[in-house]
Amino acid sequence: MSTFDPTSIATLSINGERLLQRLDALADIGSTGDGGCCRLALTDDDKAGRDLVVAWMHELDLDVVVDAIGNVFGTWNVGHGSPVMTGSHIDTVRTGGKYDGNYGVLAGLEVIATCKEFGITPARPLCVGVFTDEEGARFAPDMLGSLVYVGGLALEEALDTVSIDGKRLGDELARIGYAGAAPCPGPAPHAFVELHIEQGPVLEAENHAFGAVTGVQGISWQELTIVGQSNHAGTTPMHLRRDPAYVAAMMAVYLREIAERFGGDQVCTVGMISLHPNLINVIPARATITLDVRNTDEDTLCDAENLIDTFCFQIEQDEGVSITKRQLTRFEPVVFDERVIDLVERRATEIDGRVKRMPSGAGHDAQMLARVCPSGMIFVPSKDGISHNPREYTEPNEMIEGANVLLRVMLDLTELEF
Amino acid sequence: MSTFDPTSIATLSINGERLLQRLDALADIGSTGDGGCCRLALTDDDKAGRDLVVAWMHELDLDVVVDAIGNVFGTWNVGHGSPVMTGSHIDTVRTGGKYDGNYGVLAGLEVIATCKEFGITPARPLCVGVFTDEEGARFAPDMLGSLVYVGGLALEEALDTVSIDGKRLGDELARIGYAGAAPCPGPAPHAFVELHIEQGPVLEAENHAFGAVTGVQGISWQELTIVGQSNHAGTTPMHLRRDPAYVAAMMAVYLREIAERFGGDQVCTVGMISLHPNLINVIPARATITLDVRNTDEDTLCDAENLIDTFCFQIEQDEGVSITKRQLTRFEPVVFDERVIDLVERRATEIDGRVKRMPSGAGHDAQMLARVCPSGMIFVPSKDGISHNPREYTEPNEMIEGANVLLRVMLDLTELEF
Repeated sequence: MSTFDPTSIATLSINGERLLQRLDALADIGSTGDGGCCRLALTDDDKAGRDLVVAWMHELDLDVVVDAIGNVFGTWNVGHGSPVMTGSHIDTVRTGGKYDGNYGVLAGLEVIATCKEFGITPARPLCVGVFTDEEGARFAPDMLGSLVYVGGLALEEALDTVSIDGKRLGDELARIGYAGAAPCPGPAPHAFVELHIEQGPVLEAENHAFGAVTGVQGISWQELTIVGQSNHAGTTPMHLRRDPAYVAAMMAVYLREIAERFGGDQVCTVGMISLHPNLINVIPARATITLDVRNTDEDTLCDAENLIDTFCFQIEQDEGVSITKRQLTRFEPVVFDERVIDLVERRATEIDGRVKRMPSGAGHDAQMLARVCPSGMIFVPSKDGISHNPREYTEPNEMIEGANVLLRVMLDLTELEF
Repeated sequence: MSTFDPTSIATLSINGERLLQRLDALADIGSTGDGGCCRLALTDDDKAGRDLVVAWMHELDLDVVVDAIGNVFGTWNVGHGSPVMTGSHIDTVRTGGKYDGNYGVLAGLEVIATCKEFGITPARPLCVGVFTDEEGARFAPDMLGSLVYVGGLALEEALDTVSIDGKRLGDELARIGYAGAAPCPGPAPHAFVELHIEQGPVLEAENHAFGAVTGVQGISWQELTIVGQSNHAGTTPMHLRRDPAYVAAMMAVYLREIAERFGGDQVCTVGMISLHPNLINVIPARATITLDVRNTDEDTLCDAENLIDTFCFQIEQDEGVSITKRQLTRFEPVVFDERVIDLVERRATEIDGRVKRMPSGAGHDAQMLARVCPSGMIFVPSKDGISHNPREYTEPNEMIEGANVLLRVMLDLTELEF
């Protein structure tokens, strides 16, 4: 039962000044001094950030629960049934910005604070989740906390994960006081919606105010190790070479060809090339190259992988090298709930007509929650598409309006039966 | 005046067992335990290697002179006039083999020992030079000692060179006791001939026993720094990318195209690619790539450089990146003296008819001596073309016969007036 008029929701606004102040206060913890933030998962800085967010949850009189993988949930227990959940993460990469993740968590607190301040009592509980280790920058894989929450990774296996600095996840969780009692997997929410900066250039480049996120691109990460024959750059005639650097370059150029041939949402990236011994006058013995291939369509993603395999086979014959392939990550595309996408699009359009339905190229906790409940996401623009960088920036007004979209969508979701 | 019959030279042979034993004894100093050798210029190991070679020079009653850049000359003062010189170097790269350089020095000592043992008195002095820092692996540039010897680099400037470990060359020279009194530039020899392993695969691949080296390829080393825009690999559409890794790959593929279009002795190599930040899911901000381009013809080398410039200009426009070019090294091709080349070819053919006239793709001290006297080189095969590697290998018999070619050519040169 609703205790508010859905049409009047459109008159509500969150407290923008408080939201911006809290983003700055949280970013002070682990500040890198250049506008950026380094708060790797389960470090002392992560603990300090968590403590601050939990203090704000207590200020709102929320029920604060920590689960066995360290996810924190602040729930306003009103109404009946399972909660409408929002949430994101507060861990960052080593060269992180202020907004990635943090924005979604603090905007969630604003939604509850605003309801309380305006005397609105939703029909269902509202919950804000802070998921452990979304970035995967210290403990692989990324989105670990939300993955465990939905039962996609066994708790014990996750706790035994070892960090890049040689620490066990379970030990670090206990050390910072966030090894909670609530069981994993956790209960499915009624619905889940996450607010996030785009971390890409599309909204700004096309002059859109909001993205109604349709899903998350499937990801294929492969590492190719190309072994040839190291030799002297001056004394080895071209026809006697087995050059892994040349093969790595051919592969990078071919990957761009695939992206252009497929078009649409297809993206392909070579972000890492390592030659050994990497000297100006030595044909390398070995090259390592990574291939990051993403598409919203699983069949197309498979087509790209097959083309890469065929190219590797051909190039091994032509260039006399051997290529070993290692699959590093493989996620199928995630499709969000059409009803949630529609809701996001409608409420965003009320505030600013410039709304784009778009996939997310990056992974987010919402894609894990989509396994257990109707889910969706709201994007706001990222200046120059920059993220994971101290220069990560979204206009204050865009952030405030993004939180207002979240507010309206969450209240709508308390009314919607799936 | 000759005191021997030139036709009888063909019956002489150096002491192969001693040559091979000395190569092993020298390789024990700085041994890397895997068949390789690390004796970087002017280190303690280099000093120990020099001391051993100088002891062998004294055993032969040679006049041993050290010059101001640390070059060591062992001269057998017979006959009249300026000496016929051979020589090479005993410094190695960090992952060096046993033969590169060392072979030419020790074979030179065999030539003098053999003459003495067979009672031959040449018409001119014979001299064996050990040149400082040929590899350039600790102090740039390479071939430094021979360059200073022929007046191509001022002594003071050379002494002020700072090593990769922060030491001044002049100080290191004094520290190991090889800052000699003989002036630089030094006196021009009557002629110079250097014996060296090929360090390339051509002789073995074409089943030749010897190379009569016609000259040294000109070298152009360039470093390109490509600056684009770092962004998220998942969220940045292909058409909004300014991707330095892709541009580096295009350049590496284009460089191969140039080599294939030019054909002949043209070689082109990309040995080094460094991406920043070099992460799988980040379009790099910056790529650094080196271009090693060599040809025996100066005009063709210039043509290749011009094509690279044009390609850089075009790719900057097409891909929205900026490219900064730095010339690291530029040597014009060196042409050896036709009379010395003919002599090497004739004497080598006497021993084994499988002789190839060929350019050197690598730099050698002989190219510096060619500035001041008629010069040439003799190559013996390198197994699989491997050098600068513990697996560097030449068959014992090939090494002994190579030294015999050197013996005959040096004695011929004492008779030849230029």
